Amino acid sequence: MTTVELELATTKATLGAGARMKALVYHGPGKYAWEDKPRPAIQDPGDAIVRITTTTICGTDLHILKGDLPAVTDGRILGHEGIGVVEQVGTGVSEFHVGDKVIISCVTACLKCDFCKRGMYSHCRHGGWILGYTLDGTQAEYVRIPQADGSLYAFPSGGDEEALVMLSDILPTGFECGVLNGKVKPGDTVAIVGAGPVGLAVLLTAQFYSPAAIFMIDLDDKRLAVAKQFGATNLINSADGHAAHHVMELTEGAGVDVAIEALGRQETFENALRVLRPGGTLSSLGVYSGKLAIPLESFAAGLGDHKIVTTLCPGGKERMRRLMELVLHHRIDLTSLLTHRFTFDKIIEAYELFSKQRDGVLKVAIKVAQSNDKM
Amino acid sequence: MTTVELELATTKATLGAGARMKALVYHGPGKYAWEDKPRPAIQDPGDAIVRITTTTICGTDLHILKGDLPAVTDGRILGHEGIGVVEQVGTGVSEFHVGDKVIISCVTACLKCDFCKRGMYSHCRHGGWILGYTLDGTQAEYVRIPQADGSLYAFPSGGDEEALVMLSDILPTGFECGVLNGKVKPGDTVAIVGAGPVGLAVLLTAQFYSPAAIFMIDLDDKRLAVAKQFGATNLINSADGHAAHHVMELTEGAGVDVAIEALGRQETFENALRVLRPGGTLSSLGVYSGKLAIPLESFAAGLGDHKIVTTLCPGGKERMRRLMELVLHHRIDLTSLLTHRFTFDKIIEAYELFSKQRDGVLKVAIKVAQSNDKM
Amino acid sequence: MTTVELELATTKATLGAGARMKALVYHGPGKYAWEDKPRPAIQDPGDAIVRITTTTICGTDLHILKGDLPAVTDGRILGHEGIGVVEQVGTGVSEFHVGDKVIISCVTACLKCDFCKRGMYSHCRHGGWILGYTLDGTQAEYVRIPQADGSLYAFPSGGDEEALVMLSDILPTGFECGVLNGKVKPGDTVAIVGAGPVGLAVLLTAQFYSPAAIFMIDLDDKRLAVAKQFGATNLINSADGHAAHHVMELTEGAGVDVAIEALGRQETFENALRVLRPGGTLSSLGVYSGKLAIPLESFAAGLGDHKIVTTLCPGGKERMRRLMELVLHHRIDLTSLLTHRFTFDKIIEAYELFSKQRDGVLKVAIKVAQSNDKM
Amino acid sequence: MTTVELELATTKATLGAGARMKALVYHGPGKYAWEDKPRPAIQDPGDAIVRITTTTICGTDLHILKGDLPAVTDGRILGHEGIGVVEQVGTGVSEFHVGDKVIISCVTACLKCDFCKRGMYSHCRHGGWILGYTLDGTQAEYVRIPQADGSLYAFPSGGDEEALVMLSDILPTGFECGVLNGKVKPGDTVAIVGAGPVGLAVLLTAQFYSPAAIFMIDLDDKRLAVAKQFGATNLINSADGHAAHHVMELTEGAGVDVAIEALGRQETFENALRVLRPGGTLSSLGVYSGKLAIPLESFAAGLGDHKIVTTLCPGGKERMRRLMELVLHHRIDLTSLLTHRFTFDKIIEAYELFSKQRDGVLKVAIKVAQSNDKM
Repeated sequence: MTTVELELATTKATLGAGARMKALVYHGPGKYAWEDKPRPAIQDPGDAIVRITTTTICGTDLHILKGDLPAVTDGRILGHEGIGVVEQVGTGVSEFHVGDKVIISCVTACLKCDFCKRGMYSHCRHGGWILGYTLDGTQAEYVRIPQADGSLYAFPSGGDEEALVMLSDILPTGFECGVLNGKVKPGDTVAIVGAGPVGLAVLLTAQFYSPAAIFMIDLDDKRLAVAKQFGATNLINSADGHAAHHVMELTEGAGVDVAIEALGRQETFENALRVLRPGGTLSSLGVYSGKLAIPLESFAAGLGDHKIVTTLCPGGKERMRRLMELVLHHRIDLTSLLTHRFTFDKIIEAYELFSKQRDGVLKVAIKVAQSNDKM
Repeated sequence: MTTVELELATTKATLGAGARMKALVYHGPGKYAWEDKPRPAIQDPGDAIVRITTTTICGTDLHILKGDLPAVTDGRILGHEGIGVVEQVGTGVSEFHVGDKVIISCVTACLKCDFCKRGMYSHCRHGGWILGYTLDGTQAEYVRIPQADGSLYAFPSGGDEEALVMLSDILPTGFECGVLNGKVKPGDTVAIVGAGPVGLAVLLTAQFYSPAAIFMIDLDDKRLAVAKQFGATNLINSADGHAAHHVMELTEGAGVDVAIEALGRQETFENALRVLRPGGTLSSLGVYSGKLAIPLESFAAGLGDHKIVTTLCPGGKERMRRLMELVLHHRIDLTSLLTHRFTFDKIIEAYELFSKQRDGVLKVAIKVAQSNDKM
Repeated sequence: MTTVELELATTKATLGAGARMKALVYHGPGKYAWEDKPRPAIQDPGDAIVRITTTTICGTDLHILKGDLPAVTDGRILGHEGIGVVEQVGTGVSEFHVGDKVIISCVTACLKCDFCKRGMYSHCRHGGWILGYTLDGTQAEYVRIPQADGSLYAFPSGGDEEALVMLSDILPTGFECGVLNGKVKPGDTVAIVGAGPVGLAVLLTAQFYSPAAIFMIDLDDKRLAVAKQFGATNLINSADGHAAHHVMELTEGAGVDVAIEALGRQETFENALRVLRPGGTLSSLGVYSGKLAIPLESFAAGLGDHKIVTTLCPGGKERMRRLMELVLHHRIDLTSLLTHRFTFDKIIEAYELFSKQRDGVLKVAIKVAQSNDKM
Repeated sequence: MTTVELELATTKATLGAGARMKALVYHGPGKYAWEDKPRPAIQDPGDAIVRITTTTICGTDLHILKGDLPAVTDGRILGHEGIGVVEQVGTGVSEFHVGDKVIISCVTACLKCDFCKRGMYSHCRHGGWILGYTLDGTQAEYVRIPQADGSLYAFPSGGDEEALVMLSDILPTGFECGVLNGKVKPGDTVAIVGAGPVGLAVLLTAQFYSPAAIFMIDLDDKRLAVAKQFGATNLINSADGHAAHHVMELTEGAGVDVAIEALGRQETFENALRVLRPGGTLSSLGVYSGKLAIPLESFAAGLGDHKIVTTLCPGGKERMRRLMELVLHHRIDLTSLLTHRFTFDKIIEAYELFSKQRDGVLKVAIKVAQSNDKM
């Protein structure tokens, strides 16, 4: 970039120069605050500045707060989900314009690197999951989105913000990493281990492929009751330590066609493995902490019992296009995942509720601003 | 096998010797009668004799009556769909036993020939579609089913005969030849050309894959109204000759992801081709009479407009297994296709009604006998 | 774009301002000349100016000269294949730098539009095949490549220009449109109709999948002899009008698993269709002129004979990556397709030779400049 | 079936009554002998008696001799590979006749059960791997093959017995469990861990898909040298404990597209896992003894590193058909795996050589009889 260009960028960046905003900021394990931060500015031609209207909290944010992800440093604005309005675009942005309402993807993608060209956007050399992780995120009044053309989606006219914020992460994650990787097919028997928000997103999207039966496994009867409403055909409380046994009984010893792990613990991974029929597919979405020792005697016995395990989550554009079509045609009700609403100034309360899983909370909507607000 | 067993088999084969039964018999173009015929007997070790309890009539039977299929000769008992009870089995039958209630597949499969081993059962060297075609069929009190282990399916306990007789042909045909070949995926836009029974079976089973929109195209407003009830999102009466134009308007010029032809006429094939998006799939189920001249200018233009056409109908076992699972778990209501009921002695009336498409007829159930009847 | 930006672009563009270059220019049906033209300049941030070192001629160029593609207008520089060195890049280009040696793809792709995000680059809203068609092409000393990040490939160090120029079009086209669409598998029997350069590219790349037998069909014994050297197992001269019959005899009536049409005529398409086994795949690469009437009696008979036809050519990035790997590891000898070399000032002679198919010509290399030339 | 036929079957079954034959018999861990046994006789209508002409020894036979597979009981005739001539068939056998030369598959398949109908022949309810395991095997002059129509393959005229005996197990296992499950594609980089006979079969068949590079990893330099001759592009001796590190260096940190484990030990499984690129496929063929604890930190990290593991070996008919086509068309030289020949009376010497891996042994041919011997 020549000096002339840099000056240009500087000029544009000064539009909001010195302006401040509110944001949810991480200050090391266990510490976070809702505080003042400088507004972000355009830094690269591919950047867009988005004014957030709705954001939400993810289980991964709780992992960060616990200190499980040391790459997140003091001062980082959290959040990788959000809906907003484009406030400014760099000179290299062609698909979005100032004033466009957009859905922010949790996966930033340059579209140009070798991984992006192979469709593995979550491994983008210049992106992947960076928002609210190694880059300031969406739990703020404004956010800088790098590689905007590959990282934003047009918000459909007439869409519902609280429903569509589920498209930032949880729904495409459940759909692609769980259902598509698990290769759910019509008539299948599916077991989902973990009835948290991700497991429920898997449950909702697994039904796009019309399995015959869906077993939901969890320790919490209240979450299991929600799963029933969302379409689970059988509920299994794993508190007695015999979840795998119950599934095998329900399938008359056959095992399930697809098992989807949505928690990230050794015992849930093992349960998912043990209930799988020969030739079945285990799809693992859980974010495991530390090492995971798996007794693979049933898995790897060679001649006796054959399984497939996958944890591929490319962050595909196609999954989003399909989800958007389904939402637009009212084929899925995303608001069912939303249990609580907060204004932005109450985001600390929202975190409290969400982290303690109180009051049957699944996902919360944080209303940051109105779409039609002035700049 | 001991000598005693061998004698038993011989004895059983003589059980029905000389006995008579009622059947619907073809006597050349336009001529058919409900008349007396000898009961069939075991001829090969793989045979089973099935006592029919419920049968139905297919559009293909009407083609036969018109004389369109000259391989069907005078004296042939028609029908390739049916539910019944196994009355006798040859010594080579291992999966079915006397007294088993069964669904008869329209595709007979030896399981052993090269085509069967490739999963292309409809091309079986010793079978394929032969029932009611080159072999006496199911519109009779008894039918001989060759290669019984590959041609029958266990009737599920608690199943509904009038629903499950749809699994003999129409539902697996719509599902495999239409939906699976068409590769319908969640979020797709699908056009189905032809709202007859096969088109409606496609409509029902396409929804296993949650398309966002399904356009149903037909000349008959009454059938279109049925399609609406069955889940079509848009109805297009093609009487004005502009069906393709309407579809392109509805998709804002994009075309559909999947077009399924379910009638078998030149204009319907052309319509299906014209509404297809670049890279879309056309799946053709229609049984075309005579030659079909297709102006492929849009199809074959090479650089401009790329499409895929398929008419592969292997008659797979897997499609049936999946459909059975879905029916058993109440994921699809097959009785919706059934509009009229007849006792076997009224089958001529049933043919009249069905061939003239009167009274909104879709599929008729012909009740031949009770399941628990004595032999 | 603001005024400041426009000035910047203008400044950069003036680097070569007023400079002239030699180019092969189309002047309406049958008329073309090697003449002076202004050098191209950067127009958009995503542009690159490439100094051509090697180019070649495609059969499509001959179609253009005949006037078959009316979208090509008087004054257009032809050519959509080439190797060169990046001379200048726009501010939005991130993957390529001045001095990089590159392979120019015949398909220009923005990577950002809906078609690109679905991997259908040849349908790119801002690109697709435009070089030497609706935009000045590569048979010139310099060419402007729009959307450079999606349209160029890094030339591998140590690569051979005359081999790698085959990666601009002919090899990926043969591989993707022919072999990948045709779904060639180990042990298959394959028929290729047309032994021209594209047919031979199909022949070379089909062998990546180890078919058991490859039948090459053409009218020209000399081209068939080349096909033999390239790996065809059976040669069929179709001059007697019985090519399909010969193939059916060679396969003992079974037909081939995959038929690939590489010429674009009605009779070749019919031949490809007639030799296909039930369930086989026909892949059509030919650029058909005008309408194409296909007697589909065997194709569309419904119950008897099931085939699949495809002409999908998405222009995928993945095919190129794989081809590049194979070339780099010496798994394929691309120079085998190259029969003649010319310096740029003799390009008219090259066109003469190529259009008249003299001297066993397949592909010609046009040497425009040395890679290490000064600007 | 008439009474006359039934009598004939009874008569035929008595033909070899009381006759004796030589066989290799297991007598508990570490004990085996070449001794006299009664000739097998037809027991079921689907049976065939095959007179063995060539057999061989498998690594699994060594596992049995060690006592690793307790399901194998004292007195069992070993062997699950072999070529022979059909001597007798049961009344239910339709695809094979007395005098037919056949290849015996290590997987017996009834074709009729639910697993067979899903194409998972190795899980057949009435078969799977039973020969030389729970049923007397092929290291004998005669063997009874149950479900002959699903368990035998016609020996091609002009075929080479010593080559085609590799089709009983080792080649289809390497091809299907390793290469097809691993989804090797043109241009891929492949790592094979273990250069024993199975690993080499993987190496031979991986080349059907034209990978760009194949890394062979083993402890034995002599076996690595063989791998070089068989087409490996890079050899890695894992004796230094840094095999994974070397692979990562060779791929410049990218990892391989496909890793195939062909030994069955914890460290080889771990190596295969560690060298896999994000989104790569690990295919595991090894027969693991006891439990296998895998530190899955890289595998299951969720956001960072995504892999796919598979051990599905359905024993498909289609893999065999394709392999047969390739052998018949001289696309692969199976005799390269054969290093030693023995007559049947020297089979104990063959076991000695094979178990001690002396003299560069890979596979041994045991010549039991001439094909044209009298009965």
